[in-house]
Amino acid sequence: MTLEAVLSRIDETLPDSCERLMELMRIPSISTDPEFDADCAQAANWLVQELKSLGFSASSRPTPGHPMVIGRHTGPGRHILFYGHYDVQPVDPLELWARDPFDPQIEETPKGRVIRGRGAGDDKGQLMTFIEACRAWKDVHGTLPGNLTIFFEGEEESGSPSLIPFLEENSEELSADLALICDTGMFADEVPAIVTMLRGLAKIEFTIRAANKDLHSGMFGGVAINPIRVITKILGGLHDDQGRVTLPGFYDDVAELPEAVAAQWQGLGFDHAAFLGGVGLTTPAGEVDRTPLEQIWSRPTAEINGIWGGYTGAGFKTVLPAEASAKVSFRLVSEQDPDKILASFKAWIAAQLPPDCELVWTGPNGSPAAVMEITDPAFEATREALSEEWERPAAFVGCGGSIPIAGYFKDILGMDAMLVGFGKDDDQIHSPNEKYDLQSFHKGIRSWARVLERIAG
Amino acid sequence: MTLEAVLSRIDETLPDSCERLMELMRIPSISTDPEFDADCAQAANWLVQELKSLGFSASSRPTPGHPMVIGRHTGPGRHILFYGHYDVQPVDPLELWARDPFDPQIEETPKGRVIRGRGAGDDKGQLMTFIEACRAWKDVHGTLPGNLTIFFEGEEESGSPSLIPFLEENSEELSADLALICDTGMFADEVPAIVTMLRGLAKIEFTIRAANKDLHSGMFGGVAINPIRVITKILGGLHDDQGRVTLPGFYDDVAELPEAVAAQWQGLGFDHAAFLGGVGLTTPAGEVDRTPLEQIWSRPTAEINGIWGGYTGAGFKTVLPAEASAKVSFRLVSEQDPDKILASFKAWIAAQLPPDCELVWTGPNGSPAAVMEITDPAFEATREALSEEWERPAAFVGCGGSIPIAGYFKDILGMDAMLVGFGKDDDQIHSPNEKYDLQSFHKGIRSWARVLERIAG
Repeated sequence: MTLEAVLSRIDETLPDSCERLMELMRIPSISTDPEFDADCAQAANWLVQELKSLGFSASSRPTPGHPMVIGRHTGPGRHILFYGHYDVQPVDPLELWARDPFDPQIEETPKGRVIRGRGAGDDKGQLMTFIEACRAWKDVHGTLPGNLTIFFEGEEESGSPSLIPFLEENSEELSADLALICDTGMFADEVPAIVTMLRGLAKIEFTIRAANKDLHSGMFGGVAINPIRVITKILGGLHDDQGRVTLPGFYDDVAELPEAVAAQWQGLGFDHAAFLGGVGLTTPAGEVDRTPLEQIWSRPTAEINGIWGGYTGAGFKTVLPAEASAKVSFRLVSEQDPDKILASFKAWIAAQLPPDCELVWTGPNGSPAAVMEITDPAFEATREALSEEWERPAAFVGCGGSIPIAGYFKDILGMDAMLVGFGKDDDQIHSPNEKYDLQSFHKGIRSWARVLERIAG
Repeated sequence: MTLEAVLSRIDETLPDSCERLMELMRIPSISTDPEFDADCAQAANWLVQELKSLGFSASSRPTPGHPMVIGRHTGPGRHILFYGHYDVQPVDPLELWARDPFDPQIEETPKGRVIRGRGAGDDKGQLMTFIEACRAWKDVHGTLPGNLTIFFEGEEESGSPSLIPFLEENSEELSADLALICDTGMFADEVPAIVTMLRGLAKIEFTIRAANKDLHSGMFGGVAINPIRVITKILGGLHDDQGRVTLPGFYDDVAELPEAVAAQWQGLGFDHAAFLGGVGLTTPAGEVDRTPLEQIWSRPTAEINGIWGGYTGAGFKTVLPAEASAKVSFRLVSEQDPDKILASFKAWIAAQLPPDCELVWTGPNGSPAAVMEITDPAFEATREALSEEWERPAAFVGCGGSIPIAGYFKDILGMDAMLVGFGKDDDQIHSPNEKYDLQSFHKGIRSWARVLERIAG
């Protein structure tokens, strides 16, 4: 049985696979900060070399932002495209990391061994599961599996500004029969999942400006408008007492969950107390009439991701600042239109602005939610492959995060996407001390070997 | 006429006086930041040498914080104590300064020559007016005027933590018949003023903590409480639609302005449009049923001086932060008790805190408002001296800022204080590009010579 041979090969070469992943993690490819542009390019080149060494024809393609990586193996069967991203989140607050985020290592923990460092779980560890599965396959079969295109981007954590034009310009090359996207997680510690419902994301930053300079609150306090007072007053009204977003029209295009899906989710036995307890919380903070699973998978949200203004250093400064700023994002579901939501937000803010204040908007962008068609037999085949590897029935689930690429693949390339990933809830992605379980990495590689056996070639 | 001789001497030696002031301004004596502790000590030592060179017996006195400077000249007449502070505000945002804040220079501006740099107006330029007046006096008379104590502190911009114990421990040495405090401004560009009503100040910093780490809004958005949402919701309710502070009991101890004072203020013809226009504003933002002069002089306020939480760097990070913080201060009037106001604020915040959130409080401190008795004939003598120098009738006015020292002098040393200063509304104290008009410095020195002629010796 060649599948068994591939799985054995994966087991035997796991230490080498880990070493390659950590080599990639040592490159600080933070896409959101221009200081790390060269590192992003370096990560892309590293992947190109990796793919070439496996027999892919591969290249790094320049864009106005960070490069795309494309690898191609022509073979028999359905054309499958695999997607991941090599860029990572910023690392601040750096002081909360127990070690250098870009000097990864394998650590023993009470819950098993983990690979620790920025990008371990999001998304370098995940994309390497597929590369390592291809490597073992080739070692055993002498050739890569099926008919494959590899597609890695380097702007996923910074809103993918180059993605849409790139997909449009390279649609012939990239239009496959099915896309595999590896940027999601397990449903539970040992329960694999295929995501069929993804929230969209709309985000925007704004500054409220008032006086032409910072003022002294002794001289101007009381009579001069304080932009922090304005921004707290406005943003403090973004949610009502029931946890609902107050933006006019916000829920207009939100569909109720189909009864069958609601029932399936009910059956998952989601333990929200454990989910929240893991991060030190007890009480769901979303809409009071929705289950916690609905709150994170199928209901839209508004979050203030950053706020700043005035004196924030040590000690005290009785300043009336000239400006205050915030970064706000919305997780979107169903047919919510990111542009419409952001326009509504901008109008809502503007309508509440007192005299003497002006607004400056930065970087609005967004992507809609995606709901997959699961009639393609590859979905059921993959569900079986995952269930076999993890010895637990795999689930079709929702995902609170936004993976806009799934929507773009559908809209621009006309291709369905299957989202399979091996992240855990405690991976601390986007946070200090990010990790990826060694089990996720190992069984992730094995899972892809099983999936390829069923759907490739 | 020896007064004329002293005034002439002041005119002739003005360039030297400016050079000495700029030498003091080159010492970055930021009291609120421990990094500048040595600079504060250096500024104190510089002043000690200056006072000694004039014939004062002077010394720098250690405290648990920054040193106090005391100079003493024993002579005939009422014992007068002069107070100023040698510490300065932090300089951030540094990028808004047109030049190094600690490399002062004299600049030509459309409104006349100014001394530009941190501390020019608050309070180094002001305290040097008195020293330079003493210098010219001594040059002409051969001796210092009257019976003088000089008292400079170095913690005024950081809440004066050492002041009360120091006053208590040195009350015999520091208890004079009258205090002169030079840390205030002119009423208008050419209208000198004696402040007889000062607002108090209560300030506090707090942090709201929720999850035990930063979370990813894709995974936790909607279900996990966001401390920025909590802090904006709470602080957004600090003022009502009429500009009133909503804190329970906030106005309980606020007296209405006596009719006579209100009438005098009405007569000052305060041009609030020009006052606000100077900083790019048009509309008074305080209590809608109060005049702008009441809003800054005789009404209490609540201001958010700083707020921060989440990701505030370049680009976007869809984080749900673990905490959010703010610095809040209250300007107090009449009989408002700082401790009572801060206790009310803390209770008000705590009462609105949702589940899973905890509060951490930092650095509460405060000082009450002060209202001077102006029956001492020195007040009227000083008003005459100022009116003569500036050729405009000097006014008895209120002051929006808090100069707690006036209250401490009264409470601890049993001594009344007369607040005279030469700052202008556009001095940008506490802001980038702080300046002191050369006219303020020059006529300030001359004013003190006239005041000393009338009340010393």
